[in-house]
Amino acid sequence: MNGAESLVRTLLAGGIDVCFTNPGTSEMHFVAALDAVPGMNCVLCLFEGGVTGAADGYYRMAGKPASTLLHLGPGLANGVANLHNAKKAGSGIVNIVGEHATYHIELDAPLTADIEGIARPVSHWIKTSNLSEEIAGHGAEAIAAAMVPPGQVATLILPGDTAWNEASGPAETPAFATRPKVESARVDSAAQALKGGAKTLILLGGVALQETNLRMAGQVATKTGCALLTEWSNTRLDRGAGRIEVNRIPYVVEKAVDVLKPYDRIVLVGARPPVAFFAYPDKPSILTQDGVEFIELATDGEDIAGVLADLVEATSASKSEPAGVSTPRRPDLPKGALDPSGIAAILGNLLPENAVVVDESVTTGREFFPLTAGAPPHSWLNNRGGSIGYGLPVATGAAIACPGQKVIALEGDGSAMYTVQSLWTMARENLDITILVFSNRSYKILRGELTNVGVQNPGPRAIDMLSLNRPDLDWVAMAKGMGVDGVKVDDCEGLAKAFANGLDHEGPYLIEIEL
Amino acid sequence: MNGAESLVRTLLAGGIDVCFTNPGTSEMHFVAALDAVPGMNCVLCLFEGGVTGAADGYYRMAGKPASTLLHLGPGLANGVANLHNAKKAGSGIVNIVGEHATYHIELDAPLTADIEGIARPVSHWIKTSNLSEEIAGHGAEAIAAAMVPPGQVATLILPGDTAWNEASGPAETPAFATRPKVESARVDSAAQALKGGAKTLILLGGVALQETNLRMAGQVATKTGCALLTEWSNTRLDRGAGRIEVNRIPYVVEKAVDVLKPYDRIVLVGARPPVAFFAYPDKPSILTQDGVEFIELATDGEDIAGVLADLVEATSASKSEPAGVSTPRRPDLPKGALDPSGIAAILGNLLPENAVVVDESVTTGREFFPLTAGAPPHSWLNNRGGSIGYGLPVATGAAIACPGQKVIALEGDGSAMYTVQSLWTMARENLDITILVFSNRSYKILRGELTNVGVQNPGPRAIDMLSLNRPDLDWVAMAKGMGVDGVKVDDCEGLAKAFANGLDHEGPYLIEIEL
Repeated sequence: MNGAESLVRTLLAGGIDVCFTNPGTSEMHFVAALDAVPGMNCVLCLFEGGVTGAADGYYRMAGKPASTLLHLGPGLANGVANLHNAKKAGSGIVNIVGEHATYHIELDAPLTADIEGIARPVSHWIKTSNLSEEIAGHGAEAIAAAMVPPGQVATLILPGDTAWNEASGPAETPAFATRPKVESARVDSAAQALKGGAKTLILLGGVALQETNLRMAGQVATKTGCALLTEWSNTRLDRGAGRIEVNRIPYVVEKAVDVLKPYDRIVLVGARPPVAFFAYPDKPSILTQDGVEFIELATDGEDIAGVLADLVEATSASKSEPAGVSTPRRPDLPKGALDPSGIAAILGNLLPENAVVVDESVTTGREFFPLTAGAPPHSWLNNRGGSIGYGLPVATGAAIACPGQKVIALEGDGSAMYTVQSLWTMARENLDITILVFSNRSYKILRGELTNVGVQNPGPRAIDMLSLNRPDLDWVAMAKGMGVDGVKVDDCEGLAKAFANGLDHEGPYLIEIEL
Repeated sequence: MNGAESLVRTLLAGGIDVCFTNPGTSEMHFVAALDAVPGMNCVLCLFEGGVTGAADGYYRMAGKPASTLLHLGPGLANGVANLHNAKKAGSGIVNIVGEHATYHIELDAPLTADIEGIARPVSHWIKTSNLSEEIAGHGAEAIAAAMVPPGQVATLILPGDTAWNEASGPAETPAFATRPKVESARVDSAAQALKGGAKTLILLGGVALQETNLRMAGQVATKTGCALLTEWSNTRLDRGAGRIEVNRIPYVVEKAVDVLKPYDRIVLVGARPPVAFFAYPDKPSILTQDGVEFIELATDGEDIAGVLADLVEATSASKSEPAGVSTPRRPDLPKGALDPSGIAAILGNLLPENAVVVDESVTTGREFFPLTAGAPPHSWLNNRGGSIGYGLPVATGAAIACPGQKVIALEGDGSAMYTVQSLWTMARENLDITILVFSNRSYKILRGELTNVGVQNPGPRAIDMLSLNRPDLDWVAMAKGMGVDGVKVDDCEGLAKAFANGLDHEGPYLIEIEL
């Protein structure tokens, strides 16, 4: 057995049975091993941002890492933006990055690069295996590193000769780290803060947003009168009819400040003190009032389920009905011209049970929550790292993780272009994804930001840098080019019909929504 | 004047008048400054690999750097693969990368990343400007760094408050570094080596491949009987009728070893000792014979024109007619089924004068040289860094640099997908580019490599990872989706007609060649 095969067998033994791949010559022994050893679901992506984003989406829904296969430094570099997003989301990933044979590196062939240097800004764990006897053990370490709660990016670099030389066999994965218990003093502090009632906020993030954890938070809210909110971006929020309805802190600085103003004390459960996405002249970067007290009950890597149970106990909330349970309700289907609230109503009217919504709707989707809150239970995924181009890849990975569930990708046209190649993977794997592209033919968010910086009447150079027209993108044609069926709509009736068709359709379906 | 405007004015004063952009919120003050100050040609790309590759292509043809505008760490990361290629090509680029306001960084907002860490593996020069008063001076330094021969990647990081705070004005660019003269002892050594006649090779790279420099090398070849070759990948090779015909060292290891076997001594002029692109078990990584003597006459950053003139003198070759002048000749148009030699004949028959050929044809294009050698004078550009996805962006930048010249992009279908978004920029700027996509529906080079590693009968997992079928990519539909006209052909007659149409067409035109 060579090093590559020992690594593949180690991955499989460690529970890693999906590999999102974009291989090259230096990875051929690993490909041969994937071919020879049964058990790995290999999913080809035609760009590496699709690979790493899919691994992010997979972890969010499957709760365990996928592996990736990337081609040397530049292949890894193409995946870095979505690894940044995955790292911020707390998604566990095992990257396998090919490298030249150890003796070839010093010759500085064209593809030679500082792979560890490229990996460092987005990896929690990095190792280069210089011996085929070591690679299986390093692979096992990588799996364990990726499984450190809430999830970490592990990057294992595999030189060609490490892959092709003889190895003794697979390695056993070390025991996975468990979520550390939270000491009772922190529970006491939080319970104390919650005596402030309506002036106290519990800010929820990470696995606090899973259904059963949210219910406990809702019980505490009923008992103490405190408020519940989530961060603007969530890795995975379980919501819909019968679940606790929690709003997000708004994106726009002034609105966020207003929403947070009532609170003297903020209990953090898997969340962090809220800050602005960007800095602006004469606007605050910290969204809370001066002097607000933060009580960190649990970080996103700690035992959130356990500490919420403790908090229920400490606040004597175990008999309370949770606050904010969402009643089943569906808005009527709207008619006429399309706008964000019409789109939200159509989503709310048609969203199927157990849907996974991958939200990269940017400006269009800011008000989607109220009208979808009573739809059947579903999960809502946001971009945690802010690097656009996360949506189509994350939808791909989520669909691989959840074969029986409908995935709905909400995409701004600007965002979708960064990793548009993912459409092809959706078609190849016949993934059950309905894609809504909000085509406003601009980086619309930036038009507002340009006004914010004081440009009232932008000239043609600025307008051109923020516009996606000349020529307009034809999303139906691009989708067709990658084997995905689609349709273009320009009113509510058209969208409702197309969305219903997409949901009925088995496999990917793209709807271009002209705004 | 704020910091952003002082930087824009510094760039313009330093001769940088093209900016390939993909801006975000943190770059809005820079965008506003580009809007307010006349003189910068701003070219929007919908993915950052398109931005950095375009800057590479621009430098290769214009001989001076373009600037880029990138959105924080992840935006830079998306451009890293083509910066890797640019760095290996010796292309000068001034990257402007937005960053959060200095006081916002410690808050670790979603887009916060280690920008310098991301830049380091692909930059010769990096600086973060923390004061608006400093940014103009740093911009001037960046231009000078990018102009260090043969050309360097300079990355200037611009925090939001540095952009928006007051500055005093633009800075003057320091004098550009000139190419260092080569001491006469190295000329003497080379002249001595050339007494070996046919057993001596001059291996040419960098600006040695420009027309007048090649002529001097040709004179030396006539006089001494030495051979001339270039590396496999060239930044820019001037060739065609009336110019010196030089072959490249083949890509395939065995062929390269055979080609290099006759030579005892190799004189390097802007080139490096030839090594294999990849390592393979039981194949050499060093392509030359043991004991071959290398004489480095000039590195690619030294005064190559001067040292070639000195060598002509030292070998008394100034009266010699240069060897290997290509006679004007055009192959006949072939008929029937398409294969690489048929495609080469069509290229050779129709290639227009002053064409810029951007070659990312991978397996299809390995034999294109002989049949195009007698076409009218043209420039031929290769991928120096080996990271695929260089072709469409480099063609974009070359076309911006050379408005009156036809650019021809030769693309493998696998390669073209990585940065397919560049088609839109070609359409927006109405760039005169004819794109030939060789659609073999596979990573064909890897099918050969899989056989090389001993997999004779690959199973479905391996085949699927190397195939681009299921579904087939429809290049004409994708091009249409981005505003580029195109046609699909499947025989020689069809290609000849489509290529002639493309050359007559003003603006981009895509030909999908089904192989």
